[in-house]
Amino acid sequence: MNASQQEQSVGIVKPERYHFDDALTLRSGKVLASFDLMVETYGELNAERSNAVLICHALSGDHHAAGYHSENDSKPGWWDSCIGPGKAIDTNKFFVVCLNNLGGCAGSTGPTSINPETGKHYGPDFPIVTVRDWVKSQVMLADRLGIEKWAAVVGGSLGGMQVLRWTISYPERLDHAVVIAAAPKLSAQNIAFNEVARHSITSDPNFHGGYYLEHGTTPKQGLKLARMVGHITYLSDSAMRAKFGKDLSHFGANFGRDLRSGTLSFGYNVDFEVESYLRYQGERFSENFDANTYLLMTKALDYFDPSVDYGGDLSKAFANSDCKFMLMSFSTDWRFPPERSREIVEHLLQAKRQVTYLEIEADAGHDAFLLPIPRYIRAFSAYMNRIHRELTANAS
Amino acid sequence: MNASQQEQSVGIVKPERYHFDDALTLRSGKVLASFDLMVETYGELNAERSNAVLICHALSGDHHAAGYHSENDSKPGWWDSCIGPGKAIDTNKFFVVCLNNLGGCAGSTGPTSINPETGKHYGPDFPIVTVRDWVKSQVMLADRLGIEKWAAVVGGSLGGMQVLRWTISYPERLDHAVVIAAAPKLSAQNIAFNEVARHSITSDPNFHGGYYLEHGTTPKQGLKLARMVGHITYLSDSAMRAKFGKDLSHFGANFGRDLRSGTLSFGYNVDFEVESYLRYQGERFSENFDANTYLLMTKALDYFDPSVDYGGDLSKAFANSDCKFMLMSFSTDWRFPPERSREIVEHLLQAKRQVTYLEIEADAGHDAFLLPIPRYIRAFSAYMNRIHRELTANAS
Repeated sequence: MNASQQEQSVGIVKPERYHFDDALTLRSGKVLASFDLMVETYGELNAERSNAVLICHALSGDHHAAGYHSENDSKPGWWDSCIGPGKAIDTNKFFVVCLNNLGGCAGSTGPTSINPETGKHYGPDFPIVTVRDWVKSQVMLADRLGIEKWAAVVGGSLGGMQVLRWTISYPERLDHAVVIAAAPKLSAQNIAFNEVARHSITSDPNFHGGYYLEHGTTPKQGLKLARMVGHITYLSDSAMRAKFGKDLSHFGANFGRDLRSGTLSFGYNVDFEVESYLRYQGERFSENFDANTYLLMTKALDYFDPSVDYGGDLSKAFANSDCKFMLMSFSTDWRFPPERSREIVEHLLQAKRQVTYLEIEADAGHDAFLLPIPRYIRAFSAYMNRIHRELTANAS
Repeated sequence: MNASQQEQSVGIVKPERYHFDDALTLRSGKVLASFDLMVETYGELNAERSNAVLICHALSGDHHAAGYHSENDSKPGWWDSCIGPGKAIDTNKFFVVCLNNLGGCAGSTGPTSINPETGKHYGPDFPIVTVRDWVKSQVMLADRLGIEKWAAVVGGSLGGMQVLRWTISYPERLDHAVVIAAAPKLSAQNIAFNEVARHSITSDPNFHGGYYLEHGTTPKQGLKLARMVGHITYLSDSAMRAKFGKDLSHFGANFGRDLRSGTLSFGYNVDFEVESYLRYQGERFSENFDANTYLLMTKALDYFDPSVDYGGDLSKAFANSDCKFMLMSFSTDWRFPPERSREIVEHLLQAKRQVTYLEIEADAGHDAFLLPIPRYIRAFSAYMNRIHRELTANAS
């Protein structure tokens, strides 16, 4: 962390572990008798306890959304671009809460935790949790923190799906829902990519039916491959072109935006920068993430469909969603493209909800929601400021 | 083969093996001292030897483009929808030639062949061949068949890239180039998907550095996964929705086009039809295709870039391409979308070439070029008829 990083940063943060002894009955019918949630908070809860913002994370996220864990930390939390003093989610104004979801691998109870019933790692015996289960556990956390109503629940991608679930199951407990780069449910293509990722993990000989920790190993190759596939779907074709189309070939690019030069390996090693980039991303991820958690997260995505209890009619699901909605999508996101956000908007309008929607021109694909794209940050900031003005007006 | 199949079919066909003792120097600098090509032909070569059409196959294709190998054959060749009496490439009018490309695994010399120098399978020692090398070997085949000039060279996808190479390297040897669902070169995203496929194969513990046949095994899981990824890119999102969005869920679809019903497995087995479909496709492919060939084919795709010898300017590559061009693309093809075909068209126009271009509305994604889509077949037939009328006019 250097001086300029410090200025708009929440600084050094310390995660806290919250233990829950209340049994949690999951969507699958299984019961977690007790569980832990790892939580970070930024900013101060006001006297009215009205300025709390919950951040829901996506597939590979965790509770560490902003700031640094130590002076020597080179990288801040995953949404540091949007959370901090003066940033879109301004920690001078809001009390920001972020947790590692159940089933995660960053400290909350999940497959890598010790199953109290067996004394061994849960591994594949950790029950599959759904978006609904996560939100249920987030409600328990809100109760623990004494937050009756969130000023806003905010999330991108799978995080946005959790926000939608909040508005349907607990409409009385949030004022605003900020849903970014999400979808009302997965497309067949989305599920297909998840299935490839899962198959890649489960067919790794080191997977051992999910009991790899008991075997002293991890399905690293499978997880690496799963992440490589995932990564392609997070980046747009144009972002890849911008990233790898110039100067980045291993051979130097002779022809401007051309990916290749005269020299090719004529072997199966890396010829193009995009190949080594993907390998590197996959490799790094496979060293830091748990394969069973990855499986579980992709299933939570596949299973998400809040319309299912309403005969497939999403607008009926929103019948009691009294909060105000802000949706944002990104032009080159082909994982959850703008059409998917517009579907949600359509159903919200049918349900006569208050909704603001913004489609942002951005090259970065699905990953855009994590990046400091000026128009995105301006719109996000403006909306969060409006929330804060409402708070102040209500208080006075 | 039933009666209705017989009517517009070339019927029972027999592949022929052509042996070449002339050394072939490849783009990589390596030399194949001798090689075989497996070839099928349909229809009759006319007296003027002017009605020959060459079919170039794509990644997983082979010489068996039309007809059946026996009475009991349940499936015809891979492009039977377009080749046969009365079909787009009418075998009553044309003498159609299709070969298995060098490096293939359907009889032409490739990684599964015995290396005469070692007496063992080539395996990974089979040299990487490029589109240019394939076309070079196709010229040798044309010479052998006594075909000085093709009435047309025709191909879809990677096959279309071979057609482009013909027009650049051997412009005097074809009258028409029919290029379907192709691209002037791969995008970074295309390469990324190929890299995932390759990584999936090479990281399979049964790969043994490519010498799996010597180990009495095959990297089946890796190849299966590679094909699953590939398959997603061949299908459009809308085709997947049409295929799996209705009635096909393993649980029956309660909600019309909804993918899922109330019953979920809450496990890592198949929940959605698209998952079992992909697994099945991958499984079947991995039993019938050679992994080293798959690696080689994806590299040929990655390496394709005919502009490379012309300072990156594709229009200069076409400076001497005197044939007439017909390009077709499909609206939902996201592997090689219409934009990529339009790029080729632009460069052809800059080079002042004669070019016809048709963009076809079709739901099927990249796979559309293999399907009997009415507008496609009508356009394709009309163009091939024009070629035949020219032939007849020239002869009279």
